[in-house]
Amino acid sequence: MALIGALRAIVGNNHVATGIDGHAALGDIRGVYRGRALALVTPGSVAEVAAVVRECVKTRTPIVVQGGNTGLMGAATPDDSGRAIVLQLGRLNAVRNVDTDNDTITVEAGCVLQQVQDAARACGRLFPLSLGAEGSCTLGGNLGTNAGGTQVLRYGNTRDLTLGLEVVTAEGDIWHGLRGLRKDNTGYDLRDLYIGSEGTLGIITAATLKLYPLPVGYHTGLLTFVDLEQAVAFLSVARQGWGAALTAFEVMSGRALQLVAADAGLRPPFLPHVEDDAWYALLELSEGGEGGGGERFEQVLGLALEQGRLVDALIAQNESQRLAMWQLREHGISEAQAREGRNIKHDISLPISRLAPFVADCASALERHYPGVRVIAFGHLGDGNLHYNVSAPAGCGHAGFLAQEEGIHRVVYDCVQSHDGSISAEHGIGQVKRDVLPYYKTCLELQLMQRIKAALDPLNLLNPGKVLATGTERRPLQPLLDFEVNS
Amino acid sequence: MALIGALRAIVGNNHVATGIDGHAALGDIRGVYRGRALALVTPGSVAEVAAVVRECVKTRTPIVVQGGNTGLMGAATPDDSGRAIVLQLGRLNAVRNVDTDNDTITVEAGCVLQQVQDAARACGRLFPLSLGAEGSCTLGGNLGTNAGGTQVLRYGNTRDLTLGLEVVTAEGDIWHGLRGLRKDNTGYDLRDLYIGSEGTLGIITAATLKLYPLPVGYHTGLLTFVDLEQAVAFLSVARQGWGAALTAFEVMSGRALQLVAADAGLRPPFLPHVEDDAWYALLELSEGGEGGGGERFEQVLGLALEQGRLVDALIAQNESQRLAMWQLREHGISEAQAREGRNIKHDISLPISRLAPFVADCASALERHYPGVRVIAFGHLGDGNLHYNVSAPAGCGHAGFLAQEEGIHRVVYDCVQSHDGSISAEHGIGQVKRDVLPYYKTCLELQLMQRIKAALDPLNLLNPGKVLATGTERRPLQPLLDFEVNS
Repeated sequence: MALIGALRAIVGNNHVATGIDGHAALGDIRGVYRGRALALVTPGSVAEVAAVVRECVKTRTPIVVQGGNTGLMGAATPDDSGRAIVLQLGRLNAVRNVDTDNDTITVEAGCVLQQVQDAARACGRLFPLSLGAEGSCTLGGNLGTNAGGTQVLRYGNTRDLTLGLEVVTAEGDIWHGLRGLRKDNTGYDLRDLYIGSEGTLGIITAATLKLYPLPVGYHTGLLTFVDLEQAVAFLSVARQGWGAALTAFEVMSGRALQLVAADAGLRPPFLPHVEDDAWYALLELSEGGEGGGGERFEQVLGLALEQGRLVDALIAQNESQRLAMWQLREHGISEAQAREGRNIKHDISLPISRLAPFVADCASALERHYPGVRVIAFGHLGDGNLHYNVSAPAGCGHAGFLAQEEGIHRVVYDCVQSHDGSISAEHGIGQVKRDVLPYYKTCLELQLMQRIKAALDPLNLLNPGKVLATGTERRPLQPLLDFEVNS
Repeated sequence: MALIGALRAIVGNNHVATGIDGHAALGDIRGVYRGRALALVTPGSVAEVAAVVRECVKTRTPIVVQGGNTGLMGAATPDDSGRAIVLQLGRLNAVRNVDTDNDTITVEAGCVLQQVQDAARACGRLFPLSLGAEGSCTLGGNLGTNAGGTQVLRYGNTRDLTLGLEVVTAEGDIWHGLRGLRKDNTGYDLRDLYIGSEGTLGIITAATLKLYPLPVGYHTGLLTFVDLEQAVAFLSVARQGWGAALTAFEVMSGRALQLVAADAGLRPPFLPHVEDDAWYALLELSEGGEGGGGERFEQVLGLALEQGRLVDALIAQNESQRLAMWQLREHGISEAQAREGRNIKHDISLPISRLAPFVADCASALERHYPGVRVIAFGHLGDGNLHYNVSAPAGCGHAGFLAQEEGIHRVVYDCVQSHDGSISAEHGIGQVKRDVLPYYKTCLELQLMQRIKAALDPLNLLNPGKVLATGTERRPLQPLLDFEVNS
């Protein structure tokens, strides 16, 4: 095939693999999607990426860009037509520059997130993006999905951490937008258009990112609240008391912690008796060079306890206790859930003021439509982001439960919509949520997105069929359920 | 004229003014631009804005949207064809909602910035956008130009403070995007595309904005540095020592302060003897609920003085001294300059690590091409943003000097470009910089912008001729001067 020969001439024989039907790059990490592809192409430079795209334009070959392949939305998995190439950017993994006076780092898209964190730390700086997959996800994927994680409350999403981009366009041109500027008002914001577009508008090959002072210490506590309302109300107390030093406010429902508590292999020794309806929060203060953080941490908590603004506070006394608290939040709950069997997951966000009403309304809606299902909720309270997972009723056959997946999604998403929330907080749309998106976006918004897609990728070669359905103008459908849906 | 009748039917007779040749809305605040218009239309609701746009679509009438008309780039002034209407949004001035649990405020585009600051303060919150024109500029204009100001170091530009938008499109549809969400990854980032587009892609009618805890106090100092390098190096010290409590780091060159010192009516009593080559900085720490800020402020400054990292530090002892320091920075320099006669202004930004090399290079380039000109520089060091003003050589005729304006701009902008900077940090492009933009953007970037403009405003009715030249595909020209220009 002429295309394969041309691609080999560009990137070298060793970097174009064909006959790859069983290859890991053709499936997603959850094992839900599997596609086919003409070839797996691994370019070694931005110029090679651009040349590959220009070849694909000639033959109208779709391009599915892939980083660490850790995404949960199937955005990096090709369809089963076998017409696309998978463009894997792992070889573009140079840290091009660290500028400590400007507090910026310029990295290529194939850098693993942890590599970027380490390069920053080696220069006495913090690159604050932090999430579960940081040991294998790449910056290109973080940018493509506008990744969030545990430090968003203080430092923002990937979008907020990015000053400049280098992008290969759908025609194979290179946009040199690697600016290290905090202020630049010279025309339309192309940068933020490419960020979060999941490889459908252009191929991000490098980025200039913000760095921050490295904290000199952390103060971490596990707090118990009567209910979610009380936890939400405590966010104001924490923000007023600690300001920007507050870098994490993660919540876990009593039910989520009970799952961990019930498992002897997972239960940490410090875990208090877990109440069914209580909510728990992991709070962390990052201490800068100024010192005094521990004292301030305890002062605010002490006063709040006196005032009855929380039930209990357990403070990590050393680094290993701190890590154990994070382990509980980041791995304990997921592990305990996994041992129970697959559940139906939702990555949603709400205005913080609507978190508690949403949780109450959604629980009763689920009970009405799917009696007996159990909800395991936890997430980033400071960002209004819940991971809201629904498990089978006790004793219910698993296959039968999973067959209800679409209906359960609709109950949850309709309830999210009725509380002005988002059906995808930090994971993106990919293929998983592509076909429900038209239920929760207006015709106008979908049409504006389609126009932008057509303007920047007129041949529809970049990750076609992701985010937006291909070819058809989709219309929003009527919501299934009995919520008042805001349009 | 049928259009005028239709507009009157929509907004009421009192809100369509015709025969307005001398009207203030047809000129810009600097008195540089003056245009003509069919009518000045002042709608009272978003629905009226949308209906006005739909009428203008029928007759292909251009629409120039205007807020407080305080912009410096001529973006809100119509051209002299007289074909456009000016759409003034001042009647859309409701604060629709304050949500203290979510820390957001939803306001209409015609709200004056100060009104938004006041509404936030009334609820015990800070809306941190702050700039000289805050008593008369409107949020719509702040959004349209992605305004910056004095608090960007800590809180970001208008873009960073915005969670959601309501926008009337070029077809007169209403995009209901007023989301109060910190995380929302459901498709392309329309919000950031409209922000900073200067009324050329859509008409922003309302926004949901972030609020922050109200500082309980400030600690402010005027610092003296040997030179700009030393001031830049101190930013790292300040960020490490004070973290996010550092909310302002404004610099003023010795020459800028000498202008003020030489004027008995402007010179504040605390002003030290001003050295020609020294640089001065106004630093401010905002104190949250935790207290102890004054002590930390003095500790870090004391240690830095011992280590020779600055020459002197004058600390404001009370609120009136603090305000006098801000007065010096925000008004003193501008006043002193104004009394000298008009100068040639540049609002530029650079990577912070390139500020000092830029200032040295640009001074020698100006001296080479325009011997004797004097540079008055000051600005937001923490954001890499300089206001870089060039005055006539002593004794030079003023008219003769101003005739050199274009050439002086080119010297400065070419030097900015050679140091990877931006020719518009916070003021936008409008008409003032529209025709120099193609010198400093690649063909590709201009083309991507043109495609987006055509996708969202296919009839080119929204503020035509602003940001991008109308009708022609402009190509970058060769730089005039002897810098190595990065493409």
